Amino acid sequence: MSLLAVGSIAYDDLETPFGRRENILGGSATYFSLSASRFSPVRVVAVVGDDFGPAQEAVFQNRPIDLAGLARRPGKCFRWKGAYGFDLNEAKTLETHLNVFAHFQPDLPKAFRESPHLFLGNIDPTLQLEVLKQMDRPPKWVALDTMNFWIRGSRKALEDVLHHVDILLVNESEVRELTQEHNLLKAYRRVQATGPQILVVKRGEYGVCLLTPEGVFAAPAVPLEDVFDPTGAGDTFAGGFLGYLAAQGRTDVPALKKAALAGSVMASFTVEQFGTERLETITEQDIRHRLKGFSDMIRVEDL
Amino acid sequence: MSLLAVGSIAYDDLETPFGRRENILGGSATYFSLSASRFSPVRVVAVVGDDFGPAQEAVFQNRPIDLAGLARRPGKCFRWKGAYGFDLNEAKTLETHLNVFAHFQPDLPKAFRESPHLFLGNIDPTLQLEVLKQMDRPPKWVALDTMNFWIRGSRKALEDVLHHVDILLVNESEVRELTQEHNLLKAYRRVQATGPQILVVKRGEYGVCLLTPEGVFAAPAVPLEDVFDPTGAGDTFAGGFLGYLAAQGRTDVPALKKAALAGSVMASFTVEQFGTERLETITEQDIRHRLKGFSDMIRVEDL
Repeated sequence: MSLLAVGSIAYDDLETPFGRRENILGGSATYFSLSASRFSPVRVVAVVGDDFGPAQEAVFQNRPIDLAGLARRPGKCFRWKGAYGFDLNEAKTLETHLNVFAHFQPDLPKAFRESPHLFLGNIDPTLQLEVLKQMDRPPKWVALDTMNFWIRGSRKALEDVLHHVDILLVNESEVRELTQEHNLLKAYRRVQATGPQILVVKRGEYGVCLLTPEGVFAAPAVPLEDVFDPTGAGDTFAGGFLGYLAAQGRTDVPALKKAALAGSVMASFTVEQFGTERLETITEQDIRHRLKGFSDMIRVEDL
Repeated sequence: MSLLAVGSIAYDDLETPFGRRENILGGSATYFSLSASRFSPVRVVAVVGDDFGPAQEAVFQNRPIDLAGLARRPGKCFRWKGAYGFDLNEAKTLETHLNVFAHFQPDLPKAFRESPHLFLGNIDPTLQLEVLKQMDRPPKWVALDTMNFWIRGSRKALEDVLHHVDILLVNESEVRELTQEHNLLKAYRRVQATGPQILVVKRGEYGVCLLTPEGVFAAPAVPLEDVFDPTGAGDTFAGGFLGYLAAQGRTDVPALKKAALAGSVMASFTVEQFGTERLETITEQDIRHRLKGFSDMIRVEDL
């Protein structure tokens, strides 16, 4: 069942210890939709500039991704320039240019307003709230990603939107900043009090921790020999996780666990090459094969 | 089947954000044997001073732990004073007094020299080598723990002993320093070249990663609401892991995976109270119950 996603489409300049790329397609909605569309059709709401042409469009249209919600504005796409050191866990932002994103006002096509599943990507919480308002009926679930910038600078708007959110996806430092609590189990209870009953904590190379009213689940990341570029790993995880969840049509613990493995496997592909290179070329069989291997890896016989 | 362990028996002064304790029983051999003895009989080789009396002895003798290898020397036990900040991941050593440990020369009782399983705890590699030499026949497996202090200061002796080791247990920074390689899969190949074919990387609150010639396994740590004192968590993990492994009598991947869960569960008890407090009071049922819950937690249905 269809998954509506709002986020950014961008051009990135990236530098890692293993090389650099300039002017490559990026942005949260890009990684998210390329990943989620492996499991469920995706509808994208985002804004692009004149520099987004048929070649970029084709990247999305090779997949079941509906671009009817793409606003095209005079000017340039959002741009991000970042660099990573050897541990690859934290990006250093060198430049950010909002460009057409500065005046983005989401306007959902009619058909999008009945989407049963909604992902509010990491953008200004007031825009996330605006998307929510435009829905004709409440989706089966709403998932949200955010970051320290909004937690610090737009806490009130963020709290307003969190009231309507079922699944919160953040990394460890974000959930600690949001809740002012270091311990994840305690932080989860504070998140629950603000709205989301499902908390997904992304831990990078250490995997993911899922907290639900029925219990906790943690899984490691897929072990990789070569990590070239972590850009988009979190958005790719979110795409695999929510795409798989949308396809299952349920959000119980067994479904959430499987979705977490799907998200981790998708993220493991993204980081193996620069930008969306690997995500664009993997086959269904690559995904099935790695999912099987990962699920075998974490399986333990009865004790 | 019996597990011979060499390590330290100590008194610790500990300070965490949740309280402090002075003069409590600690040391790697203490945590290790209290944990391992839940699964397999343990034989301890260590040195103690006049300040190790019947009360301390009783802590070990409540369990199937053979203290025939305990050297008693005039003077005081090894002493460590440490403190932790809020993230609890790294101890700050405030004081170390070797005391009777300064002139420790292991001398294995006759009956100990045929032990089928040997754990060389984190002590001077020349002493680890000496223990190995005193064995009447090669054990079925030899496991070793070490730390950055020996990796930096006694690399040659450490490499000598690693030739005879099957299972290396270290944390992430240690394996990186030992191999000069950041990526775990690549670091593992360098470890393999020095001797050990099984590498166990302890990742604290992120769990554990097992690397073997047959493949990789990673498991999260047991999620806990209250972590009071991480002292001894690594030694407790090693005890649960190797005790369970010794009891199984095999070291294939299914056995190693189960042993890793046992180690993680034992470590989760240790950190819930100060020092060995919790380790001394848990029941068989507490262990079985948490093992079952943890194993259910990480189980995922077929995808």
